[in-house]
This record gives sequence, C-alpha cells and structure tokens, in this order.
Amino acid sequence: MWLMAEGSNEILLKNLILSCDPFMRFLMPKEENPEGFPPYAPGSPITGCGVAEVLESGHPEYKKGDIVCGMTRWEEYSLVHSAQIFCKIQNTDVPLSYYTGILGMPGLSAYASFYELGSPKKGERVFVSAASGAVGQLVGQFAKLMGCYVVGSAESKEKVKLLKNKFKFYEAFNYKEEQDLDAALKRYFPEGIGIYFDNVGGKTVDAVLVNMRPHGRIPICGMISQYNLDQPESIKNMIAVVLKRIQIQGFYVFEHYHLYPKFVEFILPNIKEGKIVYVEDIVQGLENGPAALIGLFKGKNVGKQVVVLAHE
Amino acid sequence: MWLMAEGSNEILLKNLILSCDPFMRFLMPKEENPEGFPPYAPGSPITGCGVAEVLESGHPEYKKGDIVCGMTRWEEYSLVHSAQIFCKIQNTDVPLSYYTGILGMPGLSAYASFYELGSPKKGERVFVSAASGAVGQLVGQFAKLMGCYVVGSAESKEKVKLLKNKFKFYEAFNYKEEQDLDAALKRYFPEGIGIYFDNVGGKTVDAVLVNMRPHGRIPICGMISQYNLDQPESIKNMIAVVLKRIQIQGFYVFEHYHLYPKFVEFILPNIKEGKIVYVEDIVQGLENGPAALIGLFKGKNVGKQVVVLAHE
Repeated sequence: MWLMAEGSNEILLKNLILSCDPFMRFLMPKEENPEGFPPYAPGSPITGCGVAEVLESGHPEYKKGDIVCGMTRWEEYSLVHSAQIFCKIQNTDVPLSYYTGILGMPGLSAYASFYELGSPKKGERVFVSAASGAVGQLVGQFAKLMGCYVVGSAESKEKVKLLKNKFKFYEAFNYKEEQDLDAALKRYFPEGIGIYFDNVGGKTVDAVLVNMRPHGRIPICGMISQYNLDQPESIKNMIAVVLKRIQIQGFYVFEHYHLYPKFVEFILPNIKEGKIVYVEDIVQGLENGPAALIGLFKGKNVGKQVVVLAHE
Repeated sequence: MWLMAEGSNEILLKNLILSCDPFMRFLMPKEENPEGFPPYAPGSPITGCGVAEVLESGHPEYKKGDIVCGMTRWEEYSLVHSAQIFCKIQNTDVPLSYYTGILGMPGLSAYASFYELGSPKKGERVFVSAASGAVGQLVGQFAKLMGCYVVGSAESKEKVKLLKNKFKFYEAFNYKEEQDLDAALKRYFPEGIGIYFDNVGGKTVDAVLVNMRPHGRIPICGMISQYNLDQPESIKNMIAVVLKRIQIQGFYVFEHYHLYPKFVEFILPNIKEGKIVYVEDIVQGLENGPAALIGLFKGKNVGKQVVVLAHE
C-alpha cells in the first residue's frame, strides 16, 4: 500500500492501454532527440502515451478511480508526476483507447498539421502516405470533409481496401506494387498535388516533389521509413522547391496542445455522428507490446497500434 | 525610321544596360520552366532584364527620351510590347544599372524573401550563401539592419574580404577552403542557425539542415550550384525538418511585385544615406555579355553582374 503525501503531486497509475507511436524511436540512443522527453534508459521501462486509472493521488485535481491520459511507462503500475498527465477523461462513451489515437496525440497531429500547416482549400488535391496509419487515416477523412480530392498510399492490399472502403479515399494504391512511384503519382494526380501530407519521408518525398503544383504545401509529420536506416535515403529533387515555390514544414505535436480543446470540440461530434471513423490494431498483454512497437516500423499494424494491458 | 502607330503599345528601345540573372538559365531548353516567360529560341536574341531609353512609343505612358526598366532582348535596339516594361525610371540620381540590381529584381528578391519568408527577429542568427552576389549582399545588410548576427559564405578570398569590409557581415568564410562545411557552420553558429538564406542549393543545404535551430526558416531564392548539373546533388538530412520543425520555402520574385513600391520607399533612403551599399561587376559591350552570363554560374562575378551597352 502506497502512502502518498497530499501535495507531492505524485500519482499512482494502473496502466490500462499503452500506445505505440513513431516518436518513441527518437527516444532510443544514437539518434538526435527532439526537445522534451529524455531518452530511454536501457534496463528501465520505456515511456509512452497511455490511458490509466488513478489508484492514489497526491495532486488535488486527480482522485482514485479517475481515468487519465498522459505519459506513462510500459509496466503494469506507474508512479508518475502530475505534470505527465495530459487530461482527465470525462467522455467515456467512446473507446478509452481512442485517447491514444483519434482523441490523442495522433488525432491532434492530423488536425493541427493538416489544417494549420496544410492550409487546405476546397477542391485541392491531397496525397497522404502511410494513409491507413494512426494519423494518415484521419488526414484523409479531414481532407474529404473539406471537399478535397484525396489519394492515399499504403503497403498492402488489405490497407488499400481499408482506405477505399472504410475511409472513403477517392483512390488508394499499394506503393510496393508500383515500379515507378513518379508514374503512379502522375496517374492519380495528372494536374499535380496541392498538399502532400508526409508520414514516411525518403523516396516518396522525392517522387512527390516533381509532382507538386505551384505553391504546394508539404507538412512533414513524420518520416517513419527513415528512422531505422543507417543512411537516410537522399532527396534529389529539391530544386522543385524553388521552381514551384513549395513550402515544406516540420511538425511536432507537443507544440500544438493549445489547440486540443478546439480539436476535441471538432472531432467528438464527428465521431458520434459516424462522419469520421477510426481503425485500431489492438494487441492484448504487455508481453506482446514490444513486437507491436517494432511492427510499427515495419508497417505491420493496420490502423493505430495499441496494447491493452487491463480493463477498468 | 520606325513609324509606330499610337495605341499599338509597341515601344522601340535603345538598350543601355543588360542584366545577367540566374533565372535566365531556366529559359534554356531541357529544363523545367517556371511560369512566365517562354524559353529562349535558338538563333534569336535572348531576353533578360535591362534598362533602356525609349526611342519611339506607341503607348501613351511612355515617350521618346524616357528611361525604362523591363524585359528586353540582348541586342542594341529592341521592339517590345509595353507590358514588358516594369517601370519608368524617375529617380536618376542613382546609377541606372541599380535598376537591374538593388532597385530591381534582385533587390526585391532579397527584400521580399528575407522579410516575408524569413520572418526575421532581432538577434537571430542568419547564414547567407553566395553572400556577395546580387541578392546575398543585400540580405546580409538587411539582416544587420534588423539587428541579426549574420555570416556569409563565398568562394574566394576577395569576396570574403568584401563581405567583411564592405558589407560588414559579422563573419564570412570561403567555403572552398573548408574541408568540412558542417564543422565550419558549427564554428560560426555554435548555437545554430535561425535563418538560412539559400542561393546555392545542394550540399550547402545538407550541411545547414543539421545546424538549424528549432523553428528555423530556409527561404530558397535560388540553387545556382545545381542549374548546370546533369544530376542534382542529393540531400541526406531532410529528417532535420521534422526534428527541428524547419520551414523550407521556395520563392519566385515575379509573384511579389506588388511589394515593389513599399520596397523602393524602404531602400532608396537607405542607399542615399549610405546605410546600404551595392557592389556591381560591370562589363562593357554586348560582345562581352555571353562570357559574363556564363561566368555567373561559375561564380566569376564579384557583385551583381551587368553588361553596359551604351550610355544615354
């Protein structure tokens, strides 16, 4: 039994759901770190986003039984500082796992980077890579809500089906079946791409650059294809940036959390009315977590990857 | 003797000064064209910016004896459409050649791309490549006026001296003498680069990317090092764009001419008070024009390259 001093601001959590997110790769050694969280220490549980139940609380805002979302550790129970909690979950008529996905960091990533960095206009042509992933599936649906033409790429027949049938992308293709990515893009975007929402980096960016329309925008939310390479793939077509006055912009969701309330106000009704759907890839048990996390970098997940540890 | 019908909108020019500009490379075959001017036709005089005297005019706004700046051809006399004239030169107490440089397209390029795309703030750290060129020398001086720390790179001892002594850059270096561009940048920017004003593209961009500060901006005004390569140099460090939330943006001066009056209002007093200086590389005679134009792509020019054909 823990005895937690009031005002200690420490909170004892029972972890319910853990989230597998690409940014976690940056917290592993030998990589440059974005500001924010310290790198993982070998031998200690890794940290990540998660949903948890409060067992004890030394902070007045949280009490036993609350369900919270925040940065926790990959273990059954975690003692965290209250600053690591993002929010207390009030709305429990959606799956709790949504708070690591559509209602969490990937959701806000899709929202802030598409609307703020992409500046989409009705009728624009949008291309999304890793389009069935945690962020991509939402960007595609946001683009449709805006009245944009949207095409997604993914790496399996199953995912392409999902893009077309579940998320209602106008078109989708399996990039692994395309010998020539440039030709594929010209087929789907004969008039060029207005916004390319990049989740993968590397050779996809290169093929996209020559197919962008003047004043096209490329919000870069991630470059998952590059995270495990010793040598990153190189980009040859940067000159297109000048020729077409393209804007490329990197994005880091933790700098956009001030938009979270506005985002929730936008997304919740859309979820409840079925206008936006969300697909998750759920594995059960902490012991299956590492394989799920590694699978993320190999594109094994179909939809947002989560690990369920326990139920309330 | 020409007989020019009033309302024909044709104007007969005596060309006084021709301008050598990097964009002219794009008007030569086998390259993608930015919108705007048609590509050069082999066997015909090439077009370019210039200053000329009106000999006859079929447009009411221009009359014999006016000095104008606009798109003309590399020949002694040109018959042009009035739409090709940018402006009638009223202010003749500065060198007329300035209208192809500091008071022309390169000046507006420096102004619009530095202030609009670069969004500079006092105290920021600015790096300029091709820093003694037509645009670079101005960007450096604008940065100083803003209270920024500015370092320039160039490719000869003579140009480095010019940067330090004439344009008063804080520091300048000869990139050809640097074995390791990354190390050079770390030496001049131990705290990273806030704004990189790119005139050259290629490996310089690559070295800069890893030395950018978070939220750094890279306005790309040109990539002159790449224009004559069969294979463009590739960029390996694009992942820095995500890690540091960098903004890269291409620029095309002809889309910013609405800023020209505001720009002239800003630049003229600065020229007259000696707060901004401008260095030109002047060759005499049309016959020396082609070598001067080619020299531009080899970095032979010291300052803005112009060709003087005749005096008023």
